[in-house]
Amino acid sequence: MKYPGGVKRTGVKKIEYAHRGMALEDSINLSNRYYLEQNIAVIYKKPTPIQIVKVDYPSRNKAVIKEAFFTVPSTLDYNGLYKGKYLDFDAKECKNKTLFPLSNIHEHQIKHIRRVLHHKGIAFLIVSFTLLEEIYLLFGEDLLEYIDHMQAKSIPIDYFRKKGHRIEVKYIPRIDYLKIIDKYMEGGYRE
Amino acid sequence: MKYPGGVKRTGVKKIEYAHRGMALEDSINLSNRYYLEQNIAVIYKKPTPIQIVKVDYPSRNKAVIKEAFFTVPSTLDYNGLYKGKYLDFDAKECKNKTLFPLSNIHEHQIKHIRRVLHHKGIAFLIVSFTLLEEIYLLFGEDLLEYIDHMQAKSIPIDYFRKKGHRIEVKYIPRIDYLKIIDKYMEGGYRE
Repeated sequence: MKYPGGVKRTGVKKIEYAHRGMALEDSINLSNRYYLEQNIAVIYKKPTPIQIVKVDYPSRNKAVIKEAFFTVPSTLDYNGLYKGKYLDFDAKECKNKTLFPLSNIHEHQIKHIRRVLHHKGIAFLIVSFTLLEEIYLLFGEDLLEYIDHMQAKSIPIDYFRKKGHRIEVKYIPRIDYLKIIDKYMEGGYRE
Repeated sequence: MKYPGGVKRTGVKKIEYAHRGMALEDSINLSNRYYLEQNIAVIYKKPTPIQIVKVDYPSRNKAVIKEAFFTVPSTLDYNGLYKGKYLDFDAKECKNKTLFPLSNIHEHQIKHIRRVLHHKGIAFLIVSFTLLEEIYLLFGEDLLEYIDHMQAKSIPIDYFRKKGHRIEVKYIPRIDYLKIIDKYMEGGYRE
């Protein structure tokens, strides 16, 4: 069915539904590509860290990795540059409806967040509570405040609702987290 | 032979010689580790980008990559944070005594350097002319100035000697490039 202006509304709806189930990481990668192409920011996901054991060279210019292992990352998955500032963050999906298990973040990633804040970078997590369809950006300062003061193995969702910054999924960019970074940079992020 | 104070001088000399031939990348990695441990900066080499084709799971918690390919990087190898500033750079060894072939840098890496400068990051190359034992840091601005004004496929070493910043290899950190970044940040890097 066609509507005036040639817009196929059923098609638009279909896209919308299809995107709703999109993995958080894919949505963020698309958003980063948008930021890059629109000349807004330069943010990349780091390649997956691996340890290569065996490489074959079937021809002169071709190398095939034949054995490798995934290794534990020391940093967060994403980093980059926005308005002269260094950003460093990770994206996590959480299937639990009431809490975010801290086992999702490695000990050295916490250490990395401390270092980034110490050197005046901006560090944060983007956590998607997939079953609730709620996505929050939680700044490193608020994450550390919780970790350092509570002897807990998880962060309750209420902490995200109170201290985090809700991100509504849009069409483009899907996860517009730089809007929240803008506020942070203006100093108004704790409003 | 032992000297007063228990210092074995021949041993010290040996270490020095052994290190002289160390690959540039290893020297930079060691320097970055020093910067990290001394709480000076947070700079990492990005993992090698690969495309994974096949993964085996011989047991529940173990994954072995059985087929993967190296892919062309879109960015530079290193990035990080120093005194609130975003750094982005690459390290290149050059066996030629008179020039640095621009085929060493991919077209999209040049584009990436332009973007980093546009968003107020600091971008540079560290080039080691291995046969001359001369190492230079060349800022992105000076690299682009050459590329944009000369229709050349290489940069002569004289350009590095004139516009670059010589790095003398030290014992620790081996490649103390942050000293040059300090000058750059003070605005005096073109002296």
